[in-house]
Amino acid sequence: MPATKNRRIVLAARPAGEPKDENFRLEETNIPAPAEGQALLRTIYLSLDPYQRGRMNAGPSYAPPVEVGQVMEGGTVSEVLESKAAELRPGNLVVGYTGWQEYAVADGKILQRIDPTLAPISTALGVLGMPGMTAYTGLLNIGQPKAGETVVVSSAAGAVGSAAGQIAKIVGCRVVGIAGGKAKCNFVVNDLGFDACVDYHSGQFAAELKAACPQGVDVYFENVGGHVLESVVPLMNLFGRVPVCGLIAHYNATGLPPGPDGVPPLMVAILVKRLTFRGFIVSDFLQQRPEFERDMAQWLREGRVKYREDVVEGLENAVAGFQGLFRGQNFGKLLVRVGPEPGK
Amino acid sequence: MPATKNRRIVLAARPAGEPKDENFRLEETNIPAPAEGQALLRTIYLSLDPYQRGRMNAGPSYAPPVEVGQVMEGGTVSEVLESKAAELRPGNLVVGYTGWQEYAVADGKILQRIDPTLAPISTALGVLGMPGMTAYTGLLNIGQPKAGETVVVSSAAGAVGSAAGQIAKIVGCRVVGIAGGKAKCNFVVNDLGFDACVDYHSGQFAAELKAACPQGVDVYFENVGGHVLESVVPLMNLFGRVPVCGLIAHYNATGLPPGPDGVPPLMVAILVKRLTFRGFIVSDFLQQRPEFERDMAQWLREGRVKYREDVVEGLENAVAGFQGLFRGQNFGKLLVRVGPEPGK
Repeated sequence: MPATKNRRIVLAARPAGEPKDENFRLEETNIPAPAEGQALLRTIYLSLDPYQRGRMNAGPSYAPPVEVGQVMEGGTVSEVLESKAAELRPGNLVVGYTGWQEYAVADGKILQRIDPTLAPISTALGVLGMPGMTAYTGLLNIGQPKAGETVVVSSAAGAVGSAAGQIAKIVGCRVVGIAGGKAKCNFVVNDLGFDACVDYHSGQFAAELKAACPQGVDVYFENVGGHVLESVVPLMNLFGRVPVCGLIAHYNATGLPPGPDGVPPLMVAILVKRLTFRGFIVSDFLQQRPEFERDMAQWLREGRVKYREDVVEGLENAVAGFQGLFRGQNFGKLLVRVGPEPGK
Repeated sequence: MPATKNRRIVLAARPAGEPKDENFRLEETNIPAPAEGQALLRTIYLSLDPYQRGRMNAGPSYAPPVEVGQVMEGGTVSEVLESKAAELRPGNLVVGYTGWQEYAVADGKILQRIDPTLAPISTALGVLGMPGMTAYTGLLNIGQPKAGETVVVSSAAGAVGSAAGQIAKIVGCRVVGIAGGKAKCNFVVNDLGFDACVDYHSGQFAAELKAACPQGVDVYFENVGGHVLESVVPLMNLFGRVPVCGLIAHYNATGLPPGPDGVPPLMVAILVKRLTFRGFIVSDFLQQRPEFERDMAQWLREGRVKYREDVVEGLENAVAGFQGLFRGQNFGKLLVRVGPEPGK
């Protein structure tokens, strides 16, 4: 019997600080019907990403916020159940931004077909999707790494960081990861092939990072902020580049942290060492999608880029998975399996 | 009777915080004799610039420090008295880095001839020299202003800021200056032709700056740091650019200022608005000197760029002039007239 109800998670209230259970609500609604040009989709994988925390705030950011009562935003891989869109047929697999829910309707024009013979379909939300393209465009356009340079990547075991570091290795750089805990650091070095990885939980973090970067740091791919950034800046070389991709340490902040004020030494470092800090999001480089897909698909085929996924089972566990993201509990690209893959 | 003694100001002790009288010492030595390839120079103008404060510190910066007991570093315009350099003859006027002293010997190869028929020779230390080229290269290469954009310039009445703002006007931008006090603000608007100028001493500075930038800020030419930067960042538009040229508010710092820590909101602004912060010094763009000299000489001839000088009389007053620089006491490019211009 086909399902008649849609389960979805909406923003119940805007969080102050860490997102708590009461900021979300699991609702049941009817499954919507597609209008002309739309398709009805069944969600298979939902992507949980740090940027979604920003969408829960009312303030302006790089995209409009999720309104209270609306479905939480998120990228998805889905199966087309019914189509009134010329581009799509039942059984097609698509990637879109249909949010934290089991069923959705969406315009065919904003959905992208996935070829399931190329790679596991979940990678359309990871290494072959938004996180992979974020790493690729930010590292190459802003970081501009050159062979022989030292590249430091924070959140090195995460979806974006793991890709950024492996791309820097392909360029010919010395690559040093930063991750939380011994297991992640071992993975980053042994599985991903980084030259070194430093545990930011270590009491000796700044000293260990310095020891891992004997030639200083030319590119710092910034995913976290906070004391990690503070430890990297003194190691930056002249004309170093800092693509600012994420700041997960600050997404739950409710006010300014106590002093001292670190802005003067940061600005003096930018001036004296002629550093470039530049923020970006993946859509700033949308026109580079074809190069990204070509290069990344080839690197995956050749085994030069590896990835790891951390899959939470069931929409009802999405909130706990998302909360764990801010405590570094995920190990690899965090996904929710909302429903089975076709034929499985 | 020709002079036989050289008066010079040396670094007596490294300052902690503001440079005090006891950090300098006026000495008399014999006038040195030029070796083969060198010229003996009589200093006419000495340039006093904020960067010289950095040279008084022991720590690494973008140039080696002045050692205790050494002559203070500074750009000069001088007359050649005697030459063993093939490039130079007595009576030639040259610009160099011969420091805070009345006489010096220097290699002919590192001195640049000045043509006194083009412009007043003092401008070789100002609008046609290092400060003018700093403004030109930093604004155009990093700021990349486009017609119709809003450009904010701090230290707008100073040597670099006044040039940067006028170049931005030539590009076709709305240009808003920041300066200390009503007299400087009036000069910036009425004489230099900026669209507006905001007094950073005003108790309403942030609100007045916002009112002066109704379309937000696309380029912030940073000369000061501190609370001025803090007020500009919230006004920055998407994809804004911040050439970091100077941070005079921080050069005398002896430690970190009290909190709260402003780094998280600064980094979040960089990320969310995709800002570029990039530090530079003029020598990073040395290869652009011919374009700079051609463009700036033409703008001066056409009256499109104006400049103002603040001339201190006599080497013995250099220290007081330099100290005043950090309190905003100079009004225009700060120079010391160490000796008379030829024929005057």
